[in-house]
Amino acid sequence: MAVPDSPVRVTATDAPDQPTRTAALEDLYRGFEKELLVPLWTEIGDLMPAHPKSDALPHIWRWNNLLPMAEQAGELVPVGRGGERRAIALANPGLGGRPFATPTLWAAIQYLNPREDAPVHRHTQNAFRFVVEGEGVWTVVNGDPVAMRRGDFLPQAGWNWHGHHNGSDRPMAWIDGLDIPFQHYGDSTFFEFGPEEVETRAAPERSRSERLWAHPGLRPLTRLRPTPATPLLAYRWEYTDRALSEQLALEAEGYSATVEPGHAAVRYTNPTTGGDVMPTIRTEFHRLAPDTETATRREVGSSVFQVFDGAGRVTVGEAAWNVERGDLFAVPSWLPLTVATEHGLDLFRFSDTPVFERLHQDRVQIDPKGTDQ
Amino acid sequence: MAVPDSPVRVTATDAPDQPTRTAALEDLYRGFEKELLVPLWTEIGDLMPAHPKSDALPHIWRWNNLLPMAEQAGELVPVGRGGERRAIALANPGLGGRPFATPTLWAAIQYLNPREDAPVHRHTQNAFRFVVEGEGVWTVVNGDPVAMRRGDFLPQAGWNWHGHHNGSDRPMAWIDGLDIPFQHYGDSTFFEFGPEEVETRAAPERSRSERLWAHPGLRPLTRLRPTPATPLLAYRWEYTDRALSEQLALEAEGYSATVEPGHAAVRYTNPTTGGDVMPTIRTEFHRLAPDTETATRREVGSSVFQVFDGAGRVTVGEAAWNVERGDLFAVPSWLPLTVATEHGLDLFRFSDTPVFERLHQDRVQIDPKGTDQ
Amino acid sequence: MAVPDSPVRVTATDAPDQPTRTAALEDLYRGFEKELLVPLWTEIGDLMPAHPKSDALPHIWRWNNLLPMAEQAGELVPVGRGGERRAIALANPGLGGRPFATPTLWAAIQYLNPREDAPVHRHTQNAFRFVVEGEGVWTVVNGDPVAMRRGDFLPQAGWNWHGHHNGSDRPMAWIDGLDIPFQHYGDSTFFEFGPEEVETRAAPERSRSERLWAHPGLRPLTRLRPTPATPLLAYRWEYTDRALSEQLALEAEGYSATVEPGHAAVRYTNPTTGGDVMPTIRTEFHRLAPDTETATRREVGSSVFQVFDGAGRVTVGEAAWNVERGDLFAVPSWLPLTVATEHGLDLFRFSDTPVFERLHQDRVQIDPKGTDQ
Amino acid sequence: MAVPDSPVRVTATDAPDQPTRTAALEDLYRGFEKELLVPLWTEIGDLMPAHPKSDALPHIWRWNNLLPMAEQAGELVPVGRGGERRAIALANPGLGGRPFATPTLWAAIQYLNPREDAPVHRHTQNAFRFVVEGEGVWTVVNGDPVAMRRGDFLPQAGWNWHGHHNGSDRPMAWIDGLDIPFQHYGDSTFFEFGPEEVETRAAPERSRSERLWAHPGLRPLTRLRPTPATPLLAYRWEYTDRALSEQLALEAEGYSATVEPGHAAVRYTNPTTGGDVMPTIRTEFHRLAPDTETATRREVGSSVFQVFDGAGRVTVGEAAWNVERGDLFAVPSWLPLTVATEHGLDLFRFSDTPVFERLHQDRVQIDPKGTDQ
Repeated sequence: MAVPDSPVRVTATDAPDQPTRTAALEDLYRGFEKELLVPLWTEIGDLMPAHPKSDALPHIWRWNNLLPMAEQAGELVPVGRGGERRAIALANPGLGGRPFATPTLWAAIQYLNPREDAPVHRHTQNAFRFVVEGEGVWTVVNGDPVAMRRGDFLPQAGWNWHGHHNGSDRPMAWIDGLDIPFQHYGDSTFFEFGPEEVETRAAPERSRSERLWAHPGLRPLTRLRPTPATPLLAYRWEYTDRALSEQLALEAEGYSATVEPGHAAVRYTNPTTGGDVMPTIRTEFHRLAPDTETATRREVGSSVFQVFDGAGRVTVGEAAWNVERGDLFAVPSWLPLTVATEHGLDLFRFSDTPVFERLHQDRVQIDPKGTDQ
Repeated sequence: MAVPDSPVRVTATDAPDQPTRTAALEDLYRGFEKELLVPLWTEIGDLMPAHPKSDALPHIWRWNNLLPMAEQAGELVPVGRGGERRAIALANPGLGGRPFATPTLWAAIQYLNPREDAPVHRHTQNAFRFVVEGEGVWTVVNGDPVAMRRGDFLPQAGWNWHGHHNGSDRPMAWIDGLDIPFQHYGDSTFFEFGPEEVETRAAPERSRSERLWAHPGLRPLTRLRPTPATPLLAYRWEYTDRALSEQLALEAEGYSATVEPGHAAVRYTNPTTGGDVMPTIRTEFHRLAPDTETATRREVGSSVFQVFDGAGRVTVGEAAWNVERGDLFAVPSWLPLTVATEHGLDLFRFSDTPVFERLHQDRVQIDPKGTDQ
Repeated sequence: MAVPDSPVRVTATDAPDQPTRTAALEDLYRGFEKELLVPLWTEIGDLMPAHPKSDALPHIWRWNNLLPMAEQAGELVPVGRGGERRAIALANPGLGGRPFATPTLWAAIQYLNPREDAPVHRHTQNAFRFVVEGEGVWTVVNGDPVAMRRGDFLPQAGWNWHGHHNGSDRPMAWIDGLDIPFQHYGDSTFFEFGPEEVETRAAPERSRSERLWAHPGLRPLTRLRPTPATPLLAYRWEYTDRALSEQLALEAEGYSATVEPGHAAVRYTNPTTGGDVMPTIRTEFHRLAPDTETATRREVGSSVFQVFDGAGRVTVGEAAWNVERGDLFAVPSWLPLTVATEHGLDLFRFSDTPVFERLHQDRVQIDPKGTDQ
Repeated sequence: MAVPDSPVRVTATDAPDQPTRTAALEDLYRGFEKELLVPLWTEIGDLMPAHPKSDALPHIWRWNNLLPMAEQAGELVPVGRGGERRAIALANPGLGGRPFATPTLWAAIQYLNPREDAPVHRHTQNAFRFVVEGEGVWTVVNGDPVAMRRGDFLPQAGWNWHGHHNGSDRPMAWIDGLDIPFQHYGDSTFFEFGPEEVETRAAPERSRSERLWAHPGLRPLTRLRPTPATPLLAYRWEYTDRALSEQLALEAEGYSATVEPGHAAVRYTNPTTGGDVMPTIRTEFHRLAPDTETATRREVGSSVFQVFDGAGRVTVGEAAWNVERGDLFAVPSWLPLTVATEHGLDLFRFSDTPVFERLHQDRVQIDPKGTDQ
């Protein structure tokens, strides 16, 4: 394999604390380049900062812009083998034009016309779908058809066969979240094609996975081994909504149940372990009661949020936006996040936190409301 | 501390493979006794058998006998500080008259008169209640009142304050299961008295623990650490029943969901880990469809079953019984168990299996139906 | 299977807080007996004490008495198939004459004449040997001959084939520790006979297990899965002694290394997990420097100690003994233990603590030196 | 925070399976760019390949080139606060000129002049040193001086204070390995300055960490909790060499001990868990006996090897090199690796495999020797 001309350039002349750029040093640096070497002392400021400084930027994508474009793509772009999905990904403005919402996370709007299929495939990337509006599509996972409806969260762990089928007469759009950037970076991705049509067009209310698994605290005796990802393929809005309402009601009754006053939240979990639904992706749902402002929080790792309902104001580092239904925003690592709402706000969130927790790199810093940062 | 006269007697003269009982050997054995020593060679047959040979016997206790006696105790025996509970325990006929259903498990019927309290205490023993009939009592756990109704399973992990209160005008009986024998054997038991009356007479439909935890796959963000025992204090019959029905329906549709044909089963689990509800006790619910016979199964460890509904025939080793609603039976370690039913059978089960699994002493042997054992 | 006449007797008339013994109550109690039932209220004081109250007693067995008896057994009792081992077990005076040093632990002196074999067998009981003096025997584990020498600790996890061979011209005695009582109680024991002679009479200095595993922090690439018990079959005195000396030296240099001043200690661990060598048995070695007295310590669970070297004074509850080389003593659950020495003391210890830790029943209470208890 | 002009360009016109590039589609693509969106169908070939296709290239860096350059840097570049280390990193030719040996791993030669200090700092990056030749430097970790000598491996888990001190009259060079690229990518890095001089110039043979921890299978009673990274700060060559020799000797005696014929290998492990020394980095040492050729192996994740001794031929994908002492080579994800030697070869290896194992993305494929791939 031919090695290309050296791509290395030792150019950090202006970095602080550098040795005097003598002719001898220049010779040494040219020697480094020839041998594909780079000194630490020219790079350390970038590589080893005092705290995380992400290339990713805080950014918001407006549902009112996204949805019409997805509809237009529905007219112009077919879905089929090769392209695989009519999915349009958020590209963080700090990440060089790649379709990466954050360094590790992919977020896209997917759109399926009436009666359309998205062909069956499988990949090592962990994925999920979240439905902010609409219904009528079934995701068929290893032959099990899973209905998609507003508020539902559908995890889709790596290496399971899956396709989508719109069984209705109306188009449907939803959000896909994946760890594509992370697996791309780590060179761990495998992919296989399945059939071009989904295995079944059955359209049951509840998937088989739900009938086996969606009973609180109960586990089928035939499925007793812990699995790396959740076997439950749909977390229905009905349960999420109720869990959040109960937390706020318990708070009102004087009991400890919320993250902070007015802020209810649940994490979607793998019932075989109690941990995250997938090894690389954490998913949560947050509900802020009217007139609530969260503490300011920084975390190692990045997140993408989608507004499910209500409206509010989000501050991420130096960026701040008024947000409403369907809007998606990216929160890079270690930037402070605050959310406030006057009339109430429901937020879906996904993040790469499990990666950092499993590798003991997680850190969180919380500044109580009203504190200077 | 004075040591009593030697309780040791080396008497296994008749054991096989013994050395000739010469005078010198007799002298040696008397020396052993004096020094509180016992040779292995006289004991090995008992202590190291080829497979487990439990002192416990298979035995059945009839609900039709138990309940009237509990009612009588309700008239004759008060409930209060000191005796603590009007509970009447099953005493396995092989275990020397101790109130032990098996070597490790306690099972009792508890009975509370209208408006009666059982005083608050806590203990290291893990406990649960299972309700085969009736309602009207609330168990108050750390101040959280938990309703008890037919089919409900209420785990009660060690060292939580708890009392019971009958808020109705009718008496109520239910089953208590604990690891009293195991903790007694291991000398690990601690006990503390609390107030003589329960902290609250509130009688809500759902406990606070259910409002926080009984949402399938969802976890409150404020409760993210795994706990040794389940934080969910009631597993309601509605969910158990539905999970079992779904398994049988899925089987009928051609999918893998049941333990074996016609045999649905769920395990009650700790949502923070996916494992057993308590460190020492496993609990399950089994439903046999009409005309079902299970495979024959042996396990290391012992179980107690209660018939929740229906009727059937149970064979444990050389014992066999026709069973019906409320009957309780004990299955000692490694005895083969088969259950058959003509019209359908619902069975609650608890066992000490987690002890053996956690210590890597678990073994299971299954003989398919119709196989000679 | 015929059920014997009821072994149950409800006789706790004198227990405190009992209901008045009316004729009706007597009738009820007779009914209980007939149905194999025992009320909690007559038993609770015994079964649910405020803290563990073991039937086991603190007791010491003197090496000066044990060894001569083992020698005598060497003359009078053959070793062979059936009796299996010339092992003489400590019988705790509180445990009804059973060969149980504590409720869960077996401890015995084993003795092998010159050129004698102890036949090959395997059992689910976890076992180990510890050598207080002598050498010349090889334990052959799954065909791997492991030399036994003073100070060596040889774990022998359940269900491995093993026999012993004395390859020397002198007899040898050592200590066997097992979880026989615990597995007997739990009805989990399996046993199989192997050949009557050991597979090999090879007498290498180091076993194959040591050649693979006794390299600090290094693991063979061919053995990467965690195993429930340690794959290392001998922990040599040379390493134990050095580890303890280093702790005391570090303490002298001003660094934190000892349990408390003058008290060095190591735990024998499974290099595949960092945890205990076996699932049910913990083993440790303690060294007290001259003029050291330990804090007083209570633990859930029981221990057996053997004095390896030196002399000292041991206090267990109300018992107190002067101890010297080879002496063995039992410490029941929750009794306070203090050890003191004028000229230095080396102690080998084994306990059932892993059972309680894995079941979340462990508790420890430490009273600093000089504190009233 | 101002968002820059859109960095997004939808340009995959030539990708296969693309919709016809009509004016309407062009309009849509321009709309995507404006909204910072990128469609999946233009990117899927790159992002979701059938198997990992790393940007990284197989590459070798020759010790004979590296060391003279490090020596020259020793003359021209001071070591001190700001630049922190005189370390020169390998820059993989496929990774855009960044000092990354692979996408996740940093490898550098570090050089310290006689009596020089490298200042104290700490960072979240996990690090280690490996010494291919020389001695005389002590790494001081949290005040504990650790000698560095040929063959020694010194793990240095994240967030521990550390500096280096050359206590000798000769310069010394060694290899640093870190997860800098991975933590840079994930935005998880924190960094703090400590003193400019090391806390101590003591030069003991063995560090305190070794005196506490380098005893096979023994654990100080004062350090019983599992730690994410190893507490043992030096793995000495003496032990590594012996472990490898024993594996080959056992193989010669007919026992299973080697990875494959003639191929001995150990993994450096954390004695508190039995797992990898650090959460993100795996380290191993491989020894090939003369006339050995390994099977061909592909793995998810990347590795860097350094030749410690001997010579051989390495094939990575389409690249092949003759290697000798000190040479370093990078193996990207999923490229097939084969190593062969005529006279024997000792190889140190580090990799990012723990990242993939902990996230359930690990895969290995082994083609036995002589198999077509």
